[in-house]
Amino acid sequence: MTAFTDQAKAARVAARALALADRARKDQALNAMADALLEHTAMVLSANTADVEAAEDTGVAPSQIDRLRLTVDRVAGMAQGLRDLAGLPDPVGEVARQWTTTTGLRISQQRVPFGVVGIIYEARPNVTADAAGICLKSGNAALLRGSSSALRSNRVVVEALRAGLSASGIDPNSIQLVEGGREVTTEMMTARGLVDLLIPRGGAGLIEAVVTGSTVPVIETGTGNCHLYVDRDADLEVAARITINAKAQRPSVCNALETVLVHHDVARDYWQALAPLLAEAGVTVHGDKATLTLVPGAVPATDAEYDAEYLSLDLAARVVDDMDEAIEHIQTHSSGHSETIVTTDQAAAAEFARRIDAAAVLVNASSRFVDGGEFGFGAEIGISTQKLHARGPMGLAELTSTKYVVVGQGQTRS
Amino acid sequence: MTAFTDQAKAARVAARALALADRARKDQALNAMADALLEHTAMVLSANTADVEAAEDTGVAPSQIDRLRLTVDRVAGMAQGLRDLAGLPDPVGEVARQWTTTTGLRISQQRVPFGVVGIIYEARPNVTADAAGICLKSGNAALLRGSSSALRSNRVVVEALRAGLSASGIDPNSIQLVEGGREVTTEMMTARGLVDLLIPRGGAGLIEAVVTGSTVPVIETGTGNCHLYVDRDADLEVAARITINAKAQRPSVCNALETVLVHHDVARDYWQALAPLLAEAGVTVHGDKATLTLVPGAVPATDAEYDAEYLSLDLAARVVDDMDEAIEHIQTHSSGHSETIVTTDQAAAAEFARRIDAAAVLVNASSRFVDGGEFGFGAEIGISTQKLHARGPMGLAELTSTKYVVVGQGQTRS
Repeated sequence: MTAFTDQAKAARVAARALALADRARKDQALNAMADALLEHTAMVLSANTADVEAAEDTGVAPSQIDRLRLTVDRVAGMAQGLRDLAGLPDPVGEVARQWTTTTGLRISQQRVPFGVVGIIYEARPNVTADAAGICLKSGNAALLRGSSSALRSNRVVVEALRAGLSASGIDPNSIQLVEGGREVTTEMMTARGLVDLLIPRGGAGLIEAVVTGSTVPVIETGTGNCHLYVDRDADLEVAARITINAKAQRPSVCNALETVLVHHDVARDYWQALAPLLAEAGVTVHGDKATLTLVPGAVPATDAEYDAEYLSLDLAARVVDDMDEAIEHIQTHSSGHSETIVTTDQAAAAEFARRIDAAAVLVNASSRFVDGGEFGFGAEIGISTQKLHARGPMGLAELTSTKYVVVGQGQTRS
Repeated sequence: MTAFTDQAKAARVAARALALADRARKDQALNAMADALLEHTAMVLSANTADVEAAEDTGVAPSQIDRLRLTVDRVAGMAQGLRDLAGLPDPVGEVARQWTTTTGLRISQQRVPFGVVGIIYEARPNVTADAAGICLKSGNAALLRGSSSALRSNRVVVEALRAGLSASGIDPNSIQLVEGGREVTTEMMTARGLVDLLIPRGGAGLIEAVVTGSTVPVIETGTGNCHLYVDRDADLEVAARITINAKAQRPSVCNALETVLVHHDVARDYWQALAPLLAEAGVTVHGDKATLTLVPGAVPATDAEYDAEYLSLDLAARVVDDMDEAIEHIQTHSSGHSETIVTTDQAAAAEFARRIDAAAVLVNASSRFVDGGEFGFGAEIGISTQKLHARGPMGLAELTSTKYVVVGQGQTRS
């Protein structure tokens, strides 16, 4: 039996008890985890400094260093996130639906935890606390497989979280850090019967590797090649405001805008108003021929650019003849995350919403709202771009399965 | 490009149109499919006779021959199943939930089809019509991978179903039979981006092969090692009636009873009343030592027997000291399908329901009720024993994903 198998078996035992823990017990644990994390702040920062220095020595990119780095404020934010979870309703035991059959059976479909959830993620130690907290609140034991470059930080964070669990009478094996080489990731991905669900969080390469290598069920949190279609009947002021916000407010995230498609009747006016604002925001427009004539400083877009996320202050653009052409472009290039139309024509909005196949379709709103927090879920483990189980922002309910409870009075089937 | 790739791409094109088809169009198609199937009865039966003769020549087991064989009545039943689907509400477009956020966004979560659904199944040609119909009603294109031993039957059935689609203005590539050797099954299981969901239907070996070999999302329709716990406070007449029904009414199916666990305080009375009835029904009891002293004609049960489905007129049995021991036994041996308690003690029933981790927990009712038809779903594609996406009987809603539609008034994120 490997070290991972031992860990997973201990997690299963812990999960069985955790599934039956009531809300008060779990909330007490979340607050104790927050307290312990704050108490460990100096140790966390010291370990994190070692991780950051090692990463800098090996020439890791500054954007990745930034994600790896913790500060007093970030640790406080992680603790606050745990306390916020304590304030949310318990999804476990919620009745999704109930009815009585013609044979007199009372059936209720109730939310239950998955059991053991594995999270595979990159060098962001804040995810360690976030994911552990969301799993705990939803009654799931968490096996946390972080990046080796955040190992020192993760060890201290997990030690603190487990101290919080112990102080609250919850088996500390409900939260475990999974250490070891790549072969351990493979073990985790193929641990059918030990791990109930895997959620990869990170770049496209990580997610693809987990999805194709796993025999354990996976929820994919995917890439967002998000489009905005500016309709002939768009309010161009609204269109400009949404374009700037969706592109530039936080360009590195999956719900940021990547391509704008503009109806040719309004393209001149739209770009005339928008181009200087985009330039001011530091955005480079990559356009088709028609766009290049309308946007000073625009550069030509290659076909490949329409397929990829920039995740930067770059914006692909095309002028289209009509909504059909916009929808056709989106269906060809979309990653199925979030697609937006700006229009005052309600029939066009309804048709766009009906025809576009994506986790979220937005009408006259920035795609940056496609987020568990903005949706009001109170917590988010990621944004699913797959169709199975959960699609779009995933909150606590999406970390549960269900169970049917059927109550009869001695019925038999004829 | 392989023949399968061509088929799957044609299915994707068909699925895109089918996702937008309204209920009237789909119901018209289902009725036309039923009509065409009846018109093809003679051809179906002739092809089926050839399949059955070939199977008999190669020494296939009589029970499998029975599943392969079609009759005039069975074909009529397949047609009626399609008409019944036409009578059900359309799951597509249903609003699962809707709310308005604090930022004034109106969000609705709506049911949408998966797209292309692959069904991999054994030599039961009735599944061809059932699965195609359920997929069509839920707006999904179906790629049907039946057994080679039912190929002649399946070809004619699919030809009839496609004729019905064409007559109703629906792209016949919405329903396709996937032919070819084992390598085609592998292609299907790894066709990420072309196939949205795979559902294996059949024995444990088939399901395991699909689950472990697929990179496409899978819903497992699994085995049912179902238990009945007879509590100290059971109504023993109810317990006997449910035991007989759950074991003997149709022993070959996944929701049939396999093991009974009896509280020692009532074991003597329970078995005294039940043993002659079970013997009359032709059931052999496989018991632990305590059971062997109570049941005339019982044979010893091996440990391995507690882990397996008999799917026959055999019943494993144990006497337990209390409910804890019963729950412990179930948690060790259960396949997570359907678990039953018979008791008049409501607190015991509630505790059993809370602690048992299974797709369905039944109180004072036969596990044979765990079925889409009995639940009132009107149609069933299988019973899921996995926790992701769907657990328990799967009806039309379980063959859909969802999409968020977010309607704003120009909101941007701050």
